[in-house]
Amino acid sequence: MSFDLANSIVLLERAPAVLEALLDGLPADWTAPNEGPDTWSPFDVVGHLVDGEETDWLPRARIILARGANRRFEPFDRFRHLRSNTGRSLTDLLARFAELRRRNLRELRGFNLGERQLGLTGEHPEFGTVTLAQLLATWVAHDLGHIAQIARVMAKQYKDAVGPWAAYLPVLHR
Amino acid sequence: MSFDLANSIVLLERAPAVLEALLDGLPADWTAPNEGPDTWSPFDVVGHLVDGEETDWLPRARIILARGANRRFEPFDRFRHLRSNTGRSLTDLLARFAELRRRNLRELRGFNLGERQLGLTGEHPEFGTVTLAQLLATWVAHDLGHIAQIARVMAKQYKDAVGPWAAYLPVLHR
Repeated sequence: MSFDLANSIVLLERAPAVLEALLDGLPADWTAPNEGPDTWSPFDVVGHLVDGEETDWLPRARIILARGANRRFEPFDRFRHLRSNTGRSLTDLLARFAELRRRNLRELRGFNLGERQLGLTGEHPEFGTVTLAQLLATWVAHDLGHIAQIARVMAKQYKDAVGPWAAYLPVLHR
Repeated sequence: MSFDLANSIVLLERAPAVLEALLDGLPADWTAPNEGPDTWSPFDVVGHLVDGEETDWLPRARIILARGANRRFEPFDRFRHLRSNTGRSLTDLLARFAELRRRNLRELRGFNLGERQLGLTGEHPEFGTVTLAQLLATWVAHDLGHIAQIARVMAKQYKDAVGPWAAYLPVLHR
């Protein structure tokens, strides 16, 4: 499917409810463990998604739409949440994510983007020129990738418990 | 984590709400495409989960708990849904899944399972002897694996739209 703004917003606005349905109120047995050293727990992933709302997606869209001389994005700190969320509860993080997402989608809708704006470009620190449509498509795919990651990390907590069925569960081997 | 009945039920009972939050009412652009020949769309995956509720998890638990002479499970038809769900709506399938899951968890709770019952065994047609605890752990991990699959299949619909960011999105390459 090529990029479609309405189809993107309809998924972006669901992510907070999906994460709440999956995680809010779960025992820490599910939400605190990760996949091993230097990997993220479900709690960590939600913290990363909060960071994206605060410092990545909308700030970059604003840079593109401002059409200034310097359209280079700030590098996104993918580890900021590991320092800033110590001691917070998952329920708090989920509520923060929902509030930020709501606010960001309100701003996105307010841009009234048409084909011309979606083709405007910014400079990614590694990739070079990227379009606003690519940025917004990535926002959607990034949500979905992290929902998949959370489900996978939780599944792996039962890697031993499933016994021989592990052979039939590819999610345990990624 | 070793198998824990309460921790398992708390996830099993969330699955219908997670799938509804993620899928119900989405345009078919997201729910109908798959990952290529002989792969499943999000619609197909929900159909497969319905089949599991109807013919797999509880029927096998009942065989184990009956402690009869023949504890061999019926093979699970992983393709039944592809024939039986033609023409149904995703909303209907999600509602059916929610109803079956509710009913099955009511029956599961009614078993009042303790350690002794969780150690009882059945005969898997391929793996041989498996315990009830392994069956129930697999039910949980199977849900999570298919939630991850649905998110991945949807993310891949934007594989081209994300442009160079595909390099940063491992979910697009699985």
